[in-house]
Amino acid sequence: MTSDSGRCFVTGGSGFIASSLVDRLLSLGHEVVAYDNFSTGQRRFLDGANANPAFRLVEGDILDLKALAAAMAGCETVFHLSANADVRFGLEHPEKDLQQNTIGTFNVLEAMRANDVHRIAFTSTGSVYGDSEVFPTPENAPLPIQTSLYAASKLAGEAMIEAYSEGFGMKAWIFRFVSVLGERYTHGHIFDFCHQLLKDPTALNILGDGSQRKSYIYIQDCIDGMLAALERAEGRVNILNVGNDGVLRVTESIEVICRELGVSPELRFSGGQQGWIGDNPYILLDASRLRALGWQPKVSIADGVARTVRWLVANPWVFEART
Amino acid sequence: MTSDSGRCFVTGGSGFIASSLVDRLLSLGHEVVAYDNFSTGQRRFLDGANANPAFRLVEGDILDLKALAAAMAGCETVFHLSANADVRFGLEHPEKDLQQNTIGTFNVLEAMRANDVHRIAFTSTGSVYGDSEVFPTPENAPLPIQTSLYAASKLAGEAMIEAYSEGFGMKAWIFRFVSVLGERYTHGHIFDFCHQLLKDPTALNILGDGSQRKSYIYIQDCIDGMLAALERAEGRVNILNVGNDGVLRVTESIEVICRELGVSPELRFSGGQQGWIGDNPYILLDASRLRALGWQPKVSIADGVARTVRWLVANPWVFEART
Repeated sequence: MTSDSGRCFVTGGSGFIASSLVDRLLSLGHEVVAYDNFSTGQRRFLDGANANPAFRLVEGDILDLKALAAAMAGCETVFHLSANADVRFGLEHPEKDLQQNTIGTFNVLEAMRANDVHRIAFTSTGSVYGDSEVFPTPENAPLPIQTSLYAASKLAGEAMIEAYSEGFGMKAWIFRFVSVLGERYTHGHIFDFCHQLLKDPTALNILGDGSQRKSYIYIQDCIDGMLAALERAEGRVNILNVGNDGVLRVTESIEVICRELGVSPELRFSGGQQGWIGDNPYILLDASRLRALGWQPKVSIADGVARTVRWLVANPWVFEART
Repeated sequence: MTSDSGRCFVTGGSGFIASSLVDRLLSLGHEVVAYDNFSTGQRRFLDGANANPAFRLVEGDILDLKALAAAMAGCETVFHLSANADVRFGLEHPEKDLQQNTIGTFNVLEAMRANDVHRIAFTSTGSVYGDSEVFPTPENAPLPIQTSLYAASKLAGEAMIEAYSEGFGMKAWIFRFVSVLGERYTHGHIFDFCHQLLKDPTALNILGDGSQRKSYIYIQDCIDGMLAALERAEGRVNILNVGNDGVLRVTESIEVICRELGVSPELRFSGGQQGWIGDNPYILLDASRLRALGWQPKVSIADGVARTVRWLVANPWVFEART
């Protein structure tokens, strides 16, 4: 990673995963340029980075190709993490996934072409496997039917990156994540549960029947996985699942959260297996391709949930700051 | 098909496949609205349709969502066939596939939502299987790596249609075609070969080494397949390969063409297995899912090539009319 990557460009640099990546890249001695419009990111997540002379923040929109290309000048590796990550409300504004994810990724690729940048790491999602019939799900699972606009737009991004790699000699690392947890976690149901319980510790409303099983990964394990892949995965297009071997039921996450918060709320389930239309009730990825590169997660899922809760309790400002 | 489909809306209605579909739908007694900007379509292909009072042509661009939605009013089934079908030159103008295919398909879906239209048939491509390792390739082949911007944009279209079907209660038929041949064929290598040989029957320049094998389908068989699926495939999202069981090598197509034209040119191969970057040297689809619905092609591949050549000879204007 260190030797080839040179100056790094991180889109959506003030987001949860991206800002954690920025900090890691800086600690490894890279120069880093972050590009963000702060539509959902948090400036405070870049406080540490801003104190580092090897860091530069460029405020701009990914839909502004000219500004994006100008900001990318001189970089050697692009980490494209900016996205509309609001999976749940895709149906309320279908154009958002198209613009911010599909067209946004196209712009990143065009900016790379304009700057002769040839290395791209892209954060996709395990949701591209739809309602998979294979568990744990490997990267070469059967071509699925997409169940959310978010996953559809991520698959579109993957496909464009692949075609650009083939056509323009780029090298790509595409990461299909399960849900990521940890410090700076700012959306998703652990966030919502904590938010509810900090306001009212006596009751918790839960979408679905609580049986949904998901294989979370802790943020630093996630970043370890990305950097291991950039260092050791040698294909033109490297597609890699990033997830834990196990799963946690929503009801089990709730137990961890309640224990951390010291509360015993009444649980009110909305019922049904899906949390919302397009939700995948069960995601468990086969990450053996990434494990074969020497990576393995160090933090258990339950511990990841607990760390997340502790961080949220210590940083209540994120509940208000969230757009 | 006939009973449920009601008034039909055909995007890109003046194209090769679309205009043939328009004629068929009219002959089955449907009202048909064709929407086209004539960027690559041919007005003459709609001469027959224009003489039919059940037909209406609306000139407009698929990127003009307002005009598209207005034109679609009162329709019950959308056949979304408009596309940038220029697979080969995708790398010269990457934004074309994004705009005309990905964003175009988004607009079609939004126009459907605005008009409460719930049935969509979409022409995708066997190229979404990339360089498949499974032959014949079934619809649930392993999630492939995209090798062309064209296929990437079609996969993006498929994915959005699937997510809209899931989220907004639409019903979809997605067709993954091999190359289609027959009357009104206006691009592709049979077209180029005939064009070359009608100008100079003594020599033929061929991209690649001529070993590429493709499983063409005859236009009327292709339309039979689409209509059989709309009548009998009952899933929410029905994905169906459309192709012949066999393949024809490029060198074999050349034999058929030369026989039809009565010429014996010197063959000049550019060499290599790929015709161009992103070309899939071998495409053979498993169409057993569509066959299980009672469909089977009636015209052999060689006969399809021969019919195409005869039509091109009888309609030399298309060589000049082509944009």
